[in-house]
Amino acid sequence: MIKVVFFDLDDTLVDTTKLAEMARKNAIENMIRHGLPVDFDTAYNELLELISEYGSNFPHHFDYLLRRLDLKYNPKLVAAGVIAYHNTKFAHLKEIRHVRKALLKLKEMGLRLGIITDGNPIKQWEKILRLDLDDFFEHVVISDFEGVKKPHPKIYQKALKIFKVNAEETIMVGDRLYSDIYGAKRVGMHTVWFRYGKYANRELEYRKYADYEIKDILELPEIIEVLNSAHSNKKVHANR
Amino acid sequence: MIKVVFFDLDDTLVDTTKLAEMARKNAIENMIRHGLPVDFDTAYNELLELISEYGSNFPHHFDYLLRRLDLKYNPKLVAAGVIAYHNTKFAHLKEIRHVRKALLKLKEMGLRLGIITDGNPIKQWEKILRLDLDDFFEHVVISDFEGVKKPHPKIYQKALKIFKVNAEETIMVGDRLYSDIYGAKRVGMHTVWFRYGKYANRELEYRKYADYEIKDILELPEIIEVLNSAHSNKKVHANR
Repeated sequence: MIKVVFFDLDDTLVDTTKLAEMARKNAIENMIRHGLPVDFDTAYNELLELISEYGSNFPHHFDYLLRRLDLKYNPKLVAAGVIAYHNTKFAHLKEIRHVRKALLKLKEMGLRLGIITDGNPIKQWEKILRLDLDDFFEHVVISDFEGVKKPHPKIYQKALKIFKVNAEETIMVGDRLYSDIYGAKRVGMHTVWFRYGKYANRELEYRKYADYEIKDILELPEIIEVLNSAHSNKKVHANR
Repeated sequence: MIKVVFFDLDDTLVDTTKLAEMARKNAIENMIRHGLPVDFDTAYNELLELISEYGSNFPHHFDYLLRRLDLKYNPKLVAAGVIAYHNTKFAHLKEIRHVRKALLKLKEMGLRLGIITDGNPIKQWEKILRLDLDDFFEHVVISDFEGVKKPHPKIYQKALKIFKVNAEETIMVGDRLYSDIYGAKRVGMHTVWFRYGKYANRELEYRKYADYEIKDILELPEIIEVLNSAHSNKKVHANR
């Protein structure tokens, strides 16, 4: 009997990757508009390379971009990048299609909801609060706050302890086969792979840990309905 | 003959202090809305104390606020503060009354304009670009970029060098008697004290370095008109 649904945040509830791409493109365009003497493709590809080397949370993308392009440090151009990046993030932050509808449906079904996510706690909460999603969730478990990262079993065990449920009473939904699906399955949770975004064809060696695969989050309530009605049937049988 | 007008940025062109006050108040209100268990006045006064101790550019105001209030660390509340703070700053960033009108008038008079400001170069450029003020100014001289701070003569001398003018051909306008007025006068610039905001009654020991005092930035073109016509009269007299 499923009682709790756990969600990953980025690219499962919130459309993070698409937003980051838009934000980066707008940043480059605004830098060019304010005098960056490089064409769009050159600058954008350099930025992507830089991000893949230094990570997406590196705080000096635009300064380093100028260095990589052999340009003099110019705070005006950096500011132009920062402004466009933030404006885009604030204006276009969106939940993934059908997320709100699916969450409402799950609440109607009497399910308790949680989030298990990696990342900077303040930045993760910013996304949740900006989208007004917080009232749906009883707890948000963030790895950088707990000191342990997905797929480590401890982060999943912490979530189970907070919700006071057993693993088999829960289902984990996420876009990452490794950190979300493999991680949750190791502690005995049911698992739903949300096949979306840049990880839709990656980490496939962990696909065997996914009980279900969905491409639309609205398939989730149906899966749980089936799981829970199978369970009540079993109980009926057992009681005979 | 005045050829160049230099402006300070914060509280001379941009209404920084008022904006920061609004942003901080909204941050506290949003934290309370999301569960901060303290009344507004207690939290706001604690925040002001914290800022006066740690400085306004300290990046952990809202974390430290929780500590000072003996509350457990809570990234949700910090995020609520950060969101409201940034939303306010982005939505309400404004130039001071009559600034755009005065800048246009000065341009019509054929004057060249510059900014001499302290602070983080990217943050200062963010304000200038967000307000679309950049086209008015030939150069923006920022102390953290030059490695020397107002009122040190070097920052003013750098500005003169960049504009290729002598000190007596320039006039410096700022809200701070110490860093703007005393600093500019030491290198021989004309000085206009913009008596506005939280420094309107402070650092009065440097008042003697102000050639003029104004409370409305629109008085500035008139002052320069008078200065320059006196100069041409003098020249006429000298030529006789």
